[in-house]
Amino acid sequence: MVDVRDDFQYDFFIQLNDQARCWFMIKRRTTMNKLFSGILATIFSTCMLSSIGYCDEAAISDATAECLECHAMQHPGIVKDWQDSRHSKITPGQAIKVKGLGRKVSSQSVPKELSATAVGCAECHLLRPDQHADTFDHNGYNVHVVVSPQDCAVCHGEEAAQYQKNIMSHAHKNLAGNDLYRQLKTSIIGKSHATRTQLGFTPADPLTEADACYYCHGTRLRVSGTQVRDTELAGEMEFPVIEGWPNQGVGRINLDGSMGSCTACHPRHTFSIEVARGPYTCKECHVGPDVPAYPVYSASKHGNIHSSLHKDWNFTNVPWTVGKDFGAPTCATCHVSLLANPDGEEIVARTHQMNNRLPWRIYGLIYAHPHPLSPDTTIIRNKDGMPLPTDLDGGYATKFLIGPEEMKQRTAEMQKVCAGCHDTSWVTGHWKKFEHVIEATDAELRTATGLMQEIWKEGLALGLPHGRNPFDEAIERKWHRTWLFYANSIRFTSAMAGGGDYGVFAGGRYQLSQSIAEMHDWYNLRWKPDHGK
Amino acid sequence: MVDVRDDFQYDFFIQLNDQARCWFMIKRRTTMNKLFSGILATIFSTCMLSSIGYCDEAAISDATAECLECHAMQHPGIVKDWQDSRHSKITPGQAIKVKGLGRKVSSQSVPKELSATAVGCAECHLLRPDQHADTFDHNGYNVHVVVSPQDCAVCHGEEAAQYQKNIMSHAHKNLAGNDLYRQLKTSIIGKSHATRTQLGFTPADPLTEADACYYCHGTRLRVSGTQVRDTELAGEMEFPVIEGWPNQGVGRINLDGSMGSCTACHPRHTFSIEVARGPYTCKECHVGPDVPAYPVYSASKHGNIHSSLHKDWNFTNVPWTVGKDFGAPTCATCHVSLLANPDGEEIVARTHQMNNRLPWRIYGLIYAHPHPLSPDTTIIRNKDGMPLPTDLDGGYATKFLIGPEEMKQRTAEMQKVCAGCHDTSWVTGHWKKFEHVIEATDAELRTATGLMQEIWKEGLALGLPHGRNPFDEAIERKWHRTWLFYANSIRFTSAMAGGGDYGVFAGGRYQLSQSIAEMHDWYNLRWKPDHGK
Amino acid sequence: MVDVRDDFQYDFFIQLNDQARCWFMIKRRTTMNKLFSGILATIFSTCMLSSIGYCDEAAISDATAECLECHAMQHPGIVKDWQDSRHSKITPGQAIKVKGLGRKVSSQSVPKELSATAVGCAECHLLRPDQHADTFDHNGYNVHVVVSPQDCAVCHGEEAAQYQKNIMSHAHKNLAGNDLYRQLKTSIIGKSHATRTQLGFTPADPLTEADACYYCHGTRLRVSGTQVRDTELAGEMEFPVIEGWPNQGVGRINLDGSMGSCTACHPRHTFSIEVARGPYTCKECHVGPDVPAYPVYSASKHGNIHSSLHKDWNFTNVPWTVGKDFGAPTCATCHVSLLANPDGEEIVARTHQMNNRLPWRIYGLIYAHPHPLSPDTTIIRNKDGMPLPTDLDGGYATKFLIGPEEMKQRTAEMQKVCAGCHDTSWVTGHWKKFEHVIEATDAELRTATGLMQEIWKEGLALGLPHGRNPFDEAIERKWHRTWLFYANSIRFTSAMAGGGDYGVFAGGRYQLSQSIAEMHDWYNLRWKPDHGK
Repeated sequence: MVDVRDDFQYDFFIQLNDQARCWFMIKRRTTMNKLFSGILATIFSTCMLSSIGYCDEAAISDATAECLECHAMQHPGIVKDWQDSRHSKITPGQAIKVKGLGRKVSSQSVPKELSATAVGCAECHLLRPDQHADTFDHNGYNVHVVVSPQDCAVCHGEEAAQYQKNIMSHAHKNLAGNDLYRQLKTSIIGKSHATRTQLGFTPADPLTEADACYYCHGTRLRVSGTQVRDTELAGEMEFPVIEGWPNQGVGRINLDGSMGSCTACHPRHTFSIEVARGPYTCKECHVGPDVPAYPVYSASKHGNIHSSLHKDWNFTNVPWTVGKDFGAPTCATCHVSLLANPDGEEIVARTHQMNNRLPWRIYGLIYAHPHPLSPDTTIIRNKDGMPLPTDLDGGYATKFLIGPEEMKQRTAEMQKVCAGCHDTSWVTGHWKKFEHVIEATDAELRTATGLMQEIWKEGLALGLPHGRNPFDEAIERKWHRTWLFYANSIRFTSAMAGGGDYGVFAGGRYQLSQSIAEMHDWYNLRWKPDHGK
Repeated sequence: MVDVRDDFQYDFFIQLNDQARCWFMIKRRTTMNKLFSGILATIFSTCMLSSIGYCDEAAISDATAECLECHAMQHPGIVKDWQDSRHSKITPGQAIKVKGLGRKVSSQSVPKELSATAVGCAECHLLRPDQHADTFDHNGYNVHVVVSPQDCAVCHGEEAAQYQKNIMSHAHKNLAGNDLYRQLKTSIIGKSHATRTQLGFTPADPLTEADACYYCHGTRLRVSGTQVRDTELAGEMEFPVIEGWPNQGVGRINLDGSMGSCTACHPRHTFSIEVARGPYTCKECHVGPDVPAYPVYSASKHGNIHSSLHKDWNFTNVPWTVGKDFGAPTCATCHVSLLANPDGEEIVARTHQMNNRLPWRIYGLIYAHPHPLSPDTTIIRNKDGMPLPTDLDGGYATKFLIGPEEMKQRTAEMQKVCAGCHDTSWVTGHWKKFEHVIEATDAELRTATGLMQEIWKEGLALGLPHGRNPFDEAIERKWHRTWLFYANSIRFTSAMAGGGDYGVFAGGRYQLSQSIAEMHDWYNLRWKPDHGK
Repeated sequence: MVDVRDDFQYDFFIQLNDQARCWFMIKRRTTMNKLFSGILATIFSTCMLSSIGYCDEAAISDATAECLECHAMQHPGIVKDWQDSRHSKITPGQAIKVKGLGRKVSSQSVPKELSATAVGCAECHLLRPDQHADTFDHNGYNVHVVVSPQDCAVCHGEEAAQYQKNIMSHAHKNLAGNDLYRQLKTSIIGKSHATRTQLGFTPADPLTEADACYYCHGTRLRVSGTQVRDTELAGEMEFPVIEGWPNQGVGRINLDGSMGSCTACHPRHTFSIEVARGPYTCKECHVGPDVPAYPVYSASKHGNIHSSLHKDWNFTNVPWTVGKDFGAPTCATCHVSLLANPDGEEIVARTHQMNNRLPWRIYGLIYAHPHPLSPDTTIIRNKDGMPLPTDLDGGYATKFLIGPEEMKQRTAEMQKVCAGCHDTSWVTGHWKKFEHVIEATDAELRTATGLMQEIWKEGLALGLPHGRNPFDEAIERKWHRTWLFYANSIRFTSAMAGGGDYGVFAGGRYQLSQSIAEMHDWYNLRWKPDHGK
């Protein structure tokens, strides 16, 4: 007899005999659903099988019921999403009782008042009203619009705490609070002023920033006032006006002062593990030449197997079991998820810090380097006092970066994931090649940066030595593409053991060597014996 | 008891009791099919359930039966496609009886002679024989090769009429009939002639045009003669020779004089709603840097949710119900489909005009602008008499464009779709940002266009002021990428509230500001005090 | 009664009556599995259906059982993969008995000692121990790490033989053994040395080569020594150290001297036909601008239909039946697979030579040309004695290329595939356009190559006439992108009748004409009357 029950995941059961029950989960949206329902109905009616039972629906709070009265009509999409979610089907009181690796509520306890009802609209949007600057009176309830990681932390405390150690939670601050990065930002998204004799970029306005860098990095939210709107169902009502909204960037500064957005990866209102575990979520931000993780993955052996077979995999089981639930890793497998072997033993623990299986930081800056110690990178200074984790020669700002022991430990943690499917010779061969590629790309960047420094020295462009924006001129852009785009792509490709073309022809070595040749060509054409200071 | 019957969608039923039937649709190609069939067979045989019934198959006309005799052997793929299609399963006479939003035949009536049989080969390829220049005698039938929107209009009249108002139906004409666009075309796909002292492009030949621009825009079909071929099954037969064929471009000029190709989105011979509703159909033409709608969508939150979960969605239900059938929009959801809420009420009407939920035209030309009034854009003249919807400064050719009222109305229509899942603060915040991005990108294009005009004035390139092709020289191409590629990408990214990298690093602001810096660099290097007129 | 049994594909059956059985295959990883199991269990228990039987599991050899003892714990992923594979479910002795087109073991006989057990770890990794340089003693067994095509050939002899005629099997050798290609490789992935007065690239180190070109082309494997490792389960053990490992490139030089890697397309340890038939496998190597087959396909009509509907197709049936198993071709359909019509008759034979449905070689070199006669292209010399299949003017090195008769035959073979879904006017129209595009792109390359030759002649760059690397300078790279990237993309787009943007704006004609304009611009700026020799 098959009993596939797993606490609270299923919608109804058939009582097969005195002990055994057969549990079913029906995804609401599936076409298959209709067929299954039909088949089951047939079985029940024709076989006189009387003992069908339904799992207890989680009770809905009165406040949530009141929300639904209007909003189920106004915004059926999100309400249906929520109805499909685990949040609608189980109470925190039930969820916290789950034993072992399957437990999803990580907080040690949940508030009594949240314990006995499903996690509905009111349970999140009424939480901690005093903490949220956007709390407003809405039909007698103190509602806030933007739910923050600190709200989620009420039940999911460990994940929220891990995430604060994740450099991603500081994505807004690390960009906005670093003078050098701000200059890069201005050179890319700023307002241009160009005539023959003048080329300059002034800082972008807030709406452009929100649409560009901060779309992924997260905006700083601010309540700028209130607005009365004539609503369809309740006439005139007053709402807060929130600058920087809507936004779901990973380092959003929320209206309770917290940093981050859980919906960046667990999109509203399904808050789905399935979505977060797929590679498409990471793709939202990691797709361009600056950080081509998704394209590289999708062209790798792992990505191929995922694309070919994932329709038959299970993306909701907790823990996530190698071999049984999936046949090749996604982004989450290697970087986030709690993994188990088929005997139910933990392979690696869940982490929302996300870089604690990563010794190297391989993108975004001139050279690869060990990961920063603190998620707040604005505190880093290299030996020249610049807010960079390496010198212009590639030397590390050691004091601010993890040391060899921590790097070794993180490497070992990642290799536990590799070992789920690969033998030791494979794993060590792969890592040897990857670490060599870090060295080799850094050597190329020394060539490019050396040329840039010569060009500055000759006065053919105005940059660091002149106290000018080192990123805005045509030749400076050619230089920053070498590290911002091409060396990155090469390292991602090597790290993921795949996506060969991305390491060579698709924004990799081809374009890196081309850029160096073009920098040389540009320099030679303009150089004259009487240049320089 | 579950009764999931929906007129004519299902293949067979199980009679459960006197009243209730359980209906099943079996997709012919599914592996699952085997399992279902097996399970059902088991139920029927072991449970002594005798009352299984099959939906009436639609009768096939004698003419179609005769077609199938040879063609089912010759081209099994398309015949199987058709057998999987709704066209093979239902007669127009049955289909027109469907009440309410589910009705798919929009014409007020269908010809009596088509009413009682399935829509097979003969029903389309023998239709309106006098109207088609490629009609030829084929085994005693007056067959035409290319079925046109006017043929489809016999049953689907409203869609065909809407589509004629769609700028896409004029895609061939609007390109071929605009002198300025023709120069752009020649500079891109023309035959090059280049030596040190000379650079020129002459118009491309028809086969190159058909393979390039007109692959998407549609070719002009023309019968150039006939050809006798020795066929496997019937010996020598004569066929028309059609220039510009094969082609399925959206603005194809057909052999009955009509414009468009329904198979551009509803590919032969399934004519599938499922295919047309998926984002991959739009991707066929909207994938490159000139119009990166698909890449942007696929990296957006909507695209992520679609990629992660669409296997469980229903892409065939009519109307298409928010929340129930799907959990995030595809291209069709926002731009084409009839949407309903879970109570079965219409949210927005179906439209094959496709731009009537769109106030702004955000790509293809120097500046964004309100949509043209007429789908025929060859009539547009700006204040300088050029066939462009804006001046070189960005001013609108107002007379030819929709006005503020119509823009407001179209915005409201689109916002009804947004409201299916988003609250008002979200929707208005999004639109405010989007409309600002239109302004901000247009400002950048004024910088780039200003540089271009200076360069022309100085005689460093020969373009508009000299009566020369303004698009063919290296520096002119740098200029047209600013609007043809980069500003477009930024606006698409903003419009779809997603795909952040496409707005910055992947052909967005990074490349836009880079192009401006490079134009400045190019200009300065070549400028000499004695240049100019 | 439905009997869907197909030899050895199914896992268990229900005995419905004396003769009929209903067979079921349960994919181990599917979520659906749970539902099916539940439903079936319900049927069996409630209907008193007693006669459920399980297909005989294939016996596992003692040696394999011993492998699994440790490795199932160490690497659960690959063991589960294997358990999901056909190799675990059927013995070669059973498989060779399959009659007709469904037979997968192509060798005339299989060794007796392999005949009666499943194809497990030991069956492959102990095979031909004397032939493999990496054979080592492992718990008393002579194990080799790297399984080669010659191992697979024991059962799959025909495919292995065909593959040796495939130019892909020579991918390492053809690159490493061609002086001119080596110069191109060095200019792309070599170590740069650049100052104002000097620009040079020296050959890349072996780890960079393995991470770059040889990731796809295949590395040359070499045992460089042995290593003792302290293993978790068995204490200290000695293993071979293999340079160039891990690698799954198509032309890998194996430790038995053979060339190729079956796992390039049939990834370990499912050895899946399903994976190999999907387009994502080819994408692993054919995705960048040098060979954009996948992006072009995915934006084509075929690719659209695949993306939209493939979840309902069957990717495991052998033969693969047009219309029944699939509704649009993938890469494998046109280039590799054995196809049948719905009557079970062969349309085209399986081929692992892969170019024998291809008259033209359309990428990788300056001009398109007929396919080489030998998979070893290092023997080719053009009329100037260069190792290229064409002259710099485009003339063919005829002696080394297939002739008109063979081209005609290969075209006819491919057109049999086209005819599965398209009529003759479609097919001939398509091919006429494609062959014209080959001519037209070659004409553009003559313009670009002519400019390059002039520039060399004037001494503005140092290349072929000077005995210098003709690929490494900035202007030379602009030239090689015209053929290495853009003409290729255009031809792929034309060949696949789709992906319009890739033929124009996405690395196609737009960039080709731009490059020619930029070469002209570069040349003019630098040219002075006193240049040249």
